[in-house]
Amino acid sequence: MSSVRIGIVGLGNMGTGHAKYLIANEVKDGVLAAVCDSRPERLEWARSELGEHVRRFDTPEAMYASGAIDGVLICTPHYDHPRQAIQAFSHGLHVLVEKPAGVYTKQVREMNEAAAASGNVFGIMYNQRTNPLYAKLKELLESGELGEIRRTNWIITNWYRPQSYYNSGGWRATWAGEGGGVLINQDPHQLDLWGWTTGLKPKRMRAFCQFGKHRDIEVENDVTAYVEYENGATGVFVTSTYESPGTNRFEVSGDRGKLVVENGKLTFSRLRVPESEFNRTFTGSFGQPECWTFDVPVASGGSQHAAITQDWVNAILKGTPLIAPGEEGINGLMLSNAMLLSTWIDDWVEFPIDEDLFYDKLQEQIRNSKTKKDANHYVTADVSGTH
Amino acid sequence: MSSVRIGIVGLGNMGTGHAKYLIANEVKDGVLAAVCDSRPERLEWARSELGEHVRRFDTPEAMYASGAIDGVLICTPHYDHPRQAIQAFSHGLHVLVEKPAGVYTKQVREMNEAAAASGNVFGIMYNQRTNPLYAKLKELLESGELGEIRRTNWIITNWYRPQSYYNSGGWRATWAGEGGGVLINQDPHQLDLWGWTTGLKPKRMRAFCQFGKHRDIEVENDVTAYVEYENGATGVFVTSTYESPGTNRFEVSGDRGKLVVENGKLTFSRLRVPESEFNRTFTGSFGQPECWTFDVPVASGGSQHAAITQDWVNAILKGTPLIAPGEEGINGLMLSNAMLLSTWIDDWVEFPIDEDLFYDKLQEQIRNSKTKKDANHYVTADVSGTH
Repeated sequence: MSSVRIGIVGLGNMGTGHAKYLIANEVKDGVLAAVCDSRPERLEWARSELGEHVRRFDTPEAMYASGAIDGVLICTPHYDHPRQAIQAFSHGLHVLVEKPAGVYTKQVREMNEAAAASGNVFGIMYNQRTNPLYAKLKELLESGELGEIRRTNWIITNWYRPQSYYNSGGWRATWAGEGGGVLINQDPHQLDLWGWTTGLKPKRMRAFCQFGKHRDIEVENDVTAYVEYENGATGVFVTSTYESPGTNRFEVSGDRGKLVVENGKLTFSRLRVPESEFNRTFTGSFGQPECWTFDVPVASGGSQHAAITQDWVNAILKGTPLIAPGEEGINGLMLSNAMLLSTWIDDWVEFPIDEDLFYDKLQEQIRNSKTKKDANHYVTADVSGTH
Repeated sequence: MSSVRIGIVGLGNMGTGHAKYLIANEVKDGVLAAVCDSRPERLEWARSELGEHVRRFDTPEAMYASGAIDGVLICTPHYDHPRQAIQAFSHGLHVLVEKPAGVYTKQVREMNEAAAASGNVFGIMYNQRTNPLYAKLKELLESGELGEIRRTNWIITNWYRPQSYYNSGGWRATWAGEGGGVLINQDPHQLDLWGWTTGLKPKRMRAFCQFGKHRDIEVENDVTAYVEYENGATGVFVTSTYESPGTNRFEVSGDRGKLVVENGKLTFSRLRVPESEFNRTFTGSFGQPECWTFDVPVASGGSQHAAITQDWVNAILKGTPLIAPGEEGINGLMLSNAMLLSTWIDDWVEFPIDEDLFYDKLQEQIRNSKTKKDANHYVTADVSGTH
């Protein structure tokens, strides 16, 4: 195989974006061969904008069975991702799934098992992993520049969404339609990067979600989470959708100082000797290690969706390792699920979480939903994956 | 009365500092008339450095009964503050107490009642209230520049203390000697400012203290606390003593934007229209209010201990209102007590806290203490106030 024939499921905002750079040949050896959407107007858009040579389907099944594609980019509502990925694997297709991997880890675990059984290439659209700031942060942490990590703190409150955003689609910000709020819609990248850059394994978590704060919605849009990691470090994650201008500040402190990502900069406060060594040898009452603070050189550009698609195409054609393996989608999702679960049971949640309990609690939210929004066709299709 | 004759109880680090600026006449109409310490070497220091005209006593009672002073500055170990203040009030003296007000709110409440009954002037050494950064922050918040507050976040992890600091006194970092760790020793100013600047009333709190982290001590030196306020806002407070260089960043977000105190600057991200108004009227899906970010002009200098002593002298002589009324010392202490209590009971704590339960839990820590440190004379005197 010298090129990968790609199909796209779902021509919403994301799917349309992927189609545009693929048709512009921005992914080497990646060819947009087919698209799929249940809405005739989106297929009409595809015909006129992508051209007749891109085949059009109104169900994923028909596209998967057509023989027209080698791999599929899944860009449908969150709930549908695992089911549609599992179907694709059963047709021998490679899969690149949009984030989040799904809505609940139980469903995503099945997708991961299907991926492993298929032996096909499975990626997830974690394009922020190619953001040079976070890539550099990961490189520094992995190479031991900060020593053992002792604390993480991410304030990510710059996901401002006005009420009009929530009113713009009947499925938005509902348990049935999206399965959550800021955690499932806005934060998947940060929840992934939090674990991916640090490599820390959460041991237990206590989180506090607030629902419909300053907004007429039923899902969470204000979260504070406290985590204890296996290595003894602790962490805090704060997020919301009603703060303006909001903050995006990620701090990691360790034995060798502190790293902060904020305002597009990666700032390192680096100790000349590790804190643990200073502490062992220092004999005065007050004092601390000599510290050098500087901005770490970081490459420009990055966090392009096309870069992840290119990486997935390369993995298919050349067997190169993925920047964002699909199986890792469960990690950020488990943090998200844990935050809701801790709130719902008003107690600690241990890792790995009780996936059945989370699923039951989510169904309870859906059953008890008092949202007045009409479920439209989109929502109906959307929810079909949950049962 | 044209001047206030001041006595100092306790010539440790703080008391010695107060004596030095008083003897240098830095407080107008405040005269250092007497000092008290149980240690002969400190009284000898006073004789040679302060002069024979400053009377010397080896018990507070003797100094209080001497008729030599009008007011007293209490600079003894934490546990002794309330008992010694109550004694002073009973002798008709004005009182300025070092922070913290005490170790547990039950004890401090009795001190406040004695102060009120006495009618004398009662201040607390919250000199950080004169720090222009926090004074300006309070002024902006009180005048409504930020609108209703929606979130607070204070990361105060720059209280670095090496093991040698903890080893430098047998009473240090023990339940019996100091009644706590970073919260009672390093954070009293921040715990005061957190409430003083914002005016927010805590409703309930969930906190996570870790004890002896990276240090051989029995008390807390790593704390993450989550608070829900009466107005619906939430807050986070993170503190530790083992991080270097640590962070001191206080963020307050509200309907009108965001204020951040960090690196000696007060930065205002101010919305041109309040978020709530924008949210009511905006019709697009994405967008947010116009925001202007700038550093607020802040006076130089400040946070001098002498300024608080001067303010207390003025209040005695002229009846002016205090910057830091002693009765307000209980507010920050209650936050501190709540953080420990929430950890010990592994549950929510409602405000006002159950003071008897906190007292019982504290006694339990003292009884169960396995610290190998020898209790020296200083500690013995120190603990006498706890029972």
